[in-house]
Amino acid sequence: MNGKRLLNNLKKYAEIGGLPSGGVHRLTLSKEDKLARDLLKKQMKEAGLNVKVDQLGNMFGIRPGTSQGAPAVMIGSHLDTVGNGGKFDGSLGVLAALEVIDTLNEQNVNTKRPIILANFTNEEGARFTPDMMGSLVFSGKYPLESALKSKPINGENTTLENELVDIGYKGDLEIGALNVGAFLELHIEQGPILEAESIDIGVVTGVQGISWIEFIFEGAANHAGTTPMHLRKDAGMAAGELLYHIKQILKEAGENQRGTVGIIETQPNLINVIPSKARITCDLRNSDNAVLQKTEDAIKKAAQQIAQEAQLKLNIHQLVRFEPVNFDKKVVDVVEKSAKENGYSTKKMISGAGHDAQMMAAVCPSAMIFIQSKDGISHDPKEFSSDEAILRGSTTLYRSCLYLANA
Amino acid sequence: MNGKRLLNNLKKYAEIGGLPSGGVHRLTLSKEDKLARDLLKKQMKEAGLNVKVDQLGNMFGIRPGTSQGAPAVMIGSHLDTVGNGGKFDGSLGVLAALEVIDTLNEQNVNTKRPIILANFTNEEGARFTPDMMGSLVFSGKYPLESALKSKPINGENTTLENELVDIGYKGDLEIGALNVGAFLELHIEQGPILEAESIDIGVVTGVQGISWIEFIFEGAANHAGTTPMHLRKDAGMAAGELLYHIKQILKEAGENQRGTVGIIETQPNLINVIPSKARITCDLRNSDNAVLQKTEDAIKKAAQQIAQEAQLKLNIHQLVRFEPVNFDKKVVDVVEKSAKENGYSTKKMISGAGHDAQMMAAVCPSAMIFIQSKDGISHDPKEFSSDEAILRGSTTLYRSCLYLANA
Repeated sequence: MNGKRLLNNLKKYAEIGGLPSGGVHRLTLSKEDKLARDLLKKQMKEAGLNVKVDQLGNMFGIRPGTSQGAPAVMIGSHLDTVGNGGKFDGSLGVLAALEVIDTLNEQNVNTKRPIILANFTNEEGARFTPDMMGSLVFSGKYPLESALKSKPINGENTTLENELVDIGYKGDLEIGALNVGAFLELHIEQGPILEAESIDIGVVTGVQGISWIEFIFEGAANHAGTTPMHLRKDAGMAAGELLYHIKQILKEAGENQRGTVGIIETQPNLINVIPSKARITCDLRNSDNAVLQKTEDAIKKAAQQIAQEAQLKLNIHQLVRFEPVNFDKKVVDVVEKSAKENGYSTKKMISGAGHDAQMMAAVCPSAMIFIQSKDGISHDPKEFSSDEAILRGSTTLYRSCLYLANA
Repeated sequence: MNGKRLLNNLKKYAEIGGLPSGGVHRLTLSKEDKLARDLLKKQMKEAGLNVKVDQLGNMFGIRPGTSQGAPAVMIGSHLDTVGNGGKFDGSLGVLAALEVIDTLNEQNVNTKRPIILANFTNEEGARFTPDMMGSLVFSGKYPLESALKSKPINGENTTLENELVDIGYKGDLEIGALNVGAFLELHIEQGPILEAESIDIGVVTGVQGISWIEFIFEGAANHAGTTPMHLRKDAGMAAGELLYHIKQILKEAGENQRGTVGIIETQPNLINVIPSKARITCDLRNSDNAVLQKTEDAIKKAAQQIAQEAQLKLNIHQLVRFEPVNFDKKVVDVVEKSAKENGYSTKKMISGAGHDAQMMAAVCPSAMIFIQSKDGISHDPKEFSSDEAILRGSTTLYRSCLYLANA
């Protein structure tokens, strides 16, 4: 492979939406996303790929195989970023896939199966929900119509469909029309494990189940000084109590159960006014669906008890729920074998973050390749993976892809 | 007294900064405050008062007494409101004082001591800190220079002194130059007790001590899915744990101990990111300084233990600390006697909110008169006291003032 070309490509894409901080701002279907898509389209065409765009803007570049009608091997990821994201999340998977194809071309290698490069629309969910939208719709588990009607989170008066049309990426390829037999995604770990254990390649065997639950307590705002304690309906205090219980519930559920209260907000949020409203969100992840379910139930029950005792209204909203995904054993084995043949140390691991591969797992045998990401930081300008790690990941992708495409 | 005139005046002032919601937006030294001050100055002059403005913009209208050199009786409150305040908080005390004077004039009543109507600058603290600023500086407990240098909370690029000059209320009367022998303030209760117990007049015997403490936990932001639980430095979880402990500590301290966590904020406040920073504020009030102190100490200790166990940085800031105030027994007795002579039911009570009277208590014998406020709501457009309650309070102020001014 031409490592220099790949690293140079990563740098070039990082400049599209590049921030002074070194981060990247390339929200899905933004003008920056359009520029990145245009560049990818140009490069795919230069690589001789047959470029197709589907009705949700998912981009595909098809390199034909020699065996008539054989299902393709798809490799790729996404080019969109969060608002203040890094250079590697998503881009690495797309550009390493491009490098795989350029290398196959240069070495005049033909494969039995077609190879398809994929750039999925709106993986991040930072502008439109749900996240992993492009692959989710591709998998048939979310209606195209709902995705097209999605409105921006920040209140912009538009729809995903309008934005697709505006940037010229509402394609005509029907959703799921491609015949795909395997999917493979290279990605940064976004966690600290590979770096901490000095492992070259994470062989990803599955993705944690994810549950996002929102709890809104409603009480009554009143004066902090004049309202007797027994007459209060303090929504903030209830939220605090729930956090305390969440901490205990997570402890009991074991280290594999991850839980995060990322958003805590009160209204009116004034120092001398009892909060009338408190909103917290809970992000729960586990590779074991039964434990995840048990944790969700325990937390919901705790919230209900707290609300009842404090005489508060409580609204619970399930914002997101993805079951844990187990990747295909054969594809996982191919990744492990390929990494080892390249002389890399490997570790089987579960992905804590969501990825397009978890949606594609519903379509075809799928797996992922992880590389070290420094301090586990991602979705941040400080996101960093070394050139060496990138090349180890890319050559593992190349070798795995060759195995799969000739199987 | 002329109840119609007083109610009409209340209505007239409520229109200055009046909001469609029925509330009032009249932040201290704003253009709305200037208009209210101008109207008060005009009305004080019409009432024959000698109008003086001190170096902090505190406004006084002096009605001479018959006894040469006798210390005055001061009555009044404040005309500023919070950003989204009500019609009665502050205005009632000032306009009832004006009605007392108009009534004395109409009835050609002379008093032994002078009577001074007061409108204090920046009681609310909603634009500049500290609150109760005008009376605090008047009492000599806060330097005039510091008050003049105060900058707006919302980041406007100006100072209190600039704003005073701008609206024409930087006066030349020296702080504390007036000879005041007693202070009396009529105010809405801003609490639910009088209404709940169907009591006409609250005879206020003191003001709770107030402590405002800010706690800021600092940890590290990381990905919710990929960061193992034991490697987290979760500032939000620590804040939740502190809230839980605050609740227990308050319970143990008894019903007289009031405590409110009004502000809860996390950073970056994203659903799938571990909070790197969490800020909560704690508003503690008690009429017993020893218990207040014990409660403060227990909460600070709990915060420190939580931070230590979670390996977080912790910053604790004491934002405000006022000791409890006991009003003068003689002035309190005058209020109680006057209310009873008017045929009103009374209840001795402690004010949960801070008031100018608590600052004036350091200058001279002081007390307050409370009237019912519906549902205890204040600092809100829904703030409401009935015409009857207003008139009961005003006639009690009138009678008390006469007693004090002839003593």
